[in-house]
Amino acid sequence: MKTRAAVAWQAGQPLTIEELDLEGPRAGEVLVEVKATGICHTDYYTLSGADPEGLFPAVLGHEGAGVVLEVGSGVASLKAGDHVIPLYTPECRQCKFCLSRKTNLCQRIRGTQGKGLMPDGTARFSLGGQPILHYMGTSTFSNHIVAPEIALAKIRTDAPFDKVCYIGCGVTTGIGAVIFTAKVEAGANVVVFGLGGIGLNVIQGARMVGADRIIGVDLNPKREAMARKFGMTHFLDPKEHPDIVDAIVQLTDGGADYSFECIGNTTTMRQALECCHKGWGQSVIIGVADAGKEIGTRPFQLVTGRVWKGSAFGGARGRTDVPRIVDWYMEGKINIDDLITHTLKLEDINKGFELMKAGESIRSVVVY
Amino acid sequence: MKTRAAVAWQAGQPLTIEELDLEGPRAGEVLVEVKATGICHTDYYTLSGADPEGLFPAVLGHEGAGVVLEVGSGVASLKAGDHVIPLYTPECRQCKFCLSRKTNLCQRIRGTQGKGLMPDGTARFSLGGQPILHYMGTSTFSNHIVAPEIALAKIRTDAPFDKVCYIGCGVTTGIGAVIFTAKVEAGANVVVFGLGGIGLNVIQGARMVGADRIIGVDLNPKREAMARKFGMTHFLDPKEHPDIVDAIVQLTDGGADYSFECIGNTTTMRQALECCHKGWGQSVIIGVADAGKEIGTRPFQLVTGRVWKGSAFGGARGRTDVPRIVDWYMEGKINIDDLITHTLKLEDINKGFELMKAGESIRSVVVY
Repeated sequence: MKTRAAVAWQAGQPLTIEELDLEGPRAGEVLVEVKATGICHTDYYTLSGADPEGLFPAVLGHEGAGVVLEVGSGVASLKAGDHVIPLYTPECRQCKFCLSRKTNLCQRIRGTQGKGLMPDGTARFSLGGQPILHYMGTSTFSNHIVAPEIALAKIRTDAPFDKVCYIGCGVTTGIGAVIFTAKVEAGANVVVFGLGGIGLNVIQGARMVGADRIIGVDLNPKREAMARKFGMTHFLDPKEHPDIVDAIVQLTDGGADYSFECIGNTTTMRQALECCHKGWGQSVIIGVADAGKEIGTRPFQLVTGRVWKGSAFGGARGRTDVPRIVDWYMEGKINIDDLITHTLKLEDINKGFELMKAGESIRSVVVY
Repeated sequence: MKTRAAVAWQAGQPLTIEELDLEGPRAGEVLVEVKATGICHTDYYTLSGADPEGLFPAVLGHEGAGVVLEVGSGVASLKAGDHVIPLYTPECRQCKFCLSRKTNLCQRIRGTQGKGLMPDGTARFSLGGQPILHYMGTSTFSNHIVAPEIALAKIRTDAPFDKVCYIGCGVTTGIGAVIFTAKVEAGANVVVFGLGGIGLNVIQGARMVGADRIIGVDLNPKREAMARKFGMTHFLDPKEHPDIVDAIVQLTDGGADYSFECIGNTTTMRQALECCHKGWGQSVIIGVADAGKEIGTRPFQLVTGRVWKGSAFGGARGRTDVPRIVDWYMEGKINIDDLITHTLKLEDINKGFELMKAGESIRSVVVY
């Protein structure tokens, strides 16, 4: 079949809209009509050429929602008409990682996914006979995609695609880091470095589980109003508090119970650890640092009880936890609507990247 | 009263045996006759002058066991005749840290303890009117000491002082890191960097909780035989495995479930983290690094699920957990006897430091 898609031909170039050939689903695969997709910093990171593992030409996009059109042989958990969110972190429930009960990082198809290919080592997209690569196993910048069954979360049918697509990455990454990775408890105090799309979701995750103080740290004072709406109780601008670690320790009577780094800056990663409370404070790295950058601290910070960890896709198991987060949205426990600041047509997808770079959007969503 | 003690007059000088004046216990304090004391690397670290917080003149020693002779006013939990182990990490059960249920790092008397003084800000030791400082709140290189009630663990009376004194630091630090800090589970694989006194106790802690593979890493092949006796199943000499991280990953089918750094070297701290299994491996820093040294890694190591933490006094709550560890020794669940390679008189205490520096002892114990 044919499908419209925004193609990244090479690093640093705008996407172009193409009509691609899409081969149907093979065994264990599913054809999905994507109804909406968010535009995430990770797409931009790859498109910019900064990601050393980026491959071209490819169909980017990893934050979508859509409807199953057709299933390949052997697919048992999905059927035509089901609503789904594609998962860049699949959940096979059979590999060592899934069975460990300790991580969400299913490794079943990681090798081929990282090469832009389906699990059998081939691509389903092509143009004039030239293969076009998949991206993160999702490629939601295409109106139609083929994805492995294990990389699709089945969700309720009354959830709006143009909102819950954001659960495919940003919402789950932020809320999940609070709930699944850090397991923040009611009454805790929480510090969030970076009040972009991820940080705001960390904040509402912390509010959802009953945190007491929720302190946001950002150089951009314009972020304060939105963050307060999502549950932030205190705002610190490092320009006004040059020793930001000390300012946090003062404000929290000894340090953060939990801190979250949502920027991807190794300096703030260190601050996020060192502002934690002696004896038990945990710092969670969510942001992706530039290639080659390293974090550092004195080991004394850890020996005196602080814990340094990280979170990918919020520690969420895609097929198990994503449908629950969709429920939380439908029940009004979390707010997604106010985070989606712009809605675009596929033709205008490059404008979505520009809004992101200019810091004007929290999230732009393309609706097909 | 008078008491014999080994006094550290200044950094880098041998200890000298003196007859000190010891004032009796004030409110909340206890007079203890020390029966035996281990000689630990931390005593040497302070004596060498490398510890920037070291103070002189002082009575060092923090790994003792003895008998209560007299209690000050208000002391309710101890009486003359009780057997005790002095605690450099006290347990007041009333401060924010004790009540958090998340840490063993009681802070009740930390300020004065760090200054070499009792909680009321004075010293009990003196010589010719000159105050001699306490050390770590314990000063077990003196035959008699005064210690706060909250810094004494009451133990069973049938436990031999010359063995269980080692529970005052090394045994608890190693076994506790496994049981209380990392909470290693049966079937886990464990990697231990450094097979000295702490590392051997980590090994027997891992054996006690039912770990599967227990891999020891040490540059000294002479350590292998002793470590195997304590439960080590595999030995790796980094001279034979220059890429020690890769060697461990191969041996463990993907990485360590838990690793422990028992050396105090920031390079091995990084290796200990990076040899952990993606998704869930936890690395625990036990060793004390030189002042100013920093640890580093790529944040990707944490974002992909490894956890970096530390352990002080094995995460053990002194008054609660130390008596349990004494029970474990008396029940034969752990081996202390084979770790105590040398027994000395107080007059020969400097020889104990020499044996340690030469790597000839695991633990030397002074018996009064």
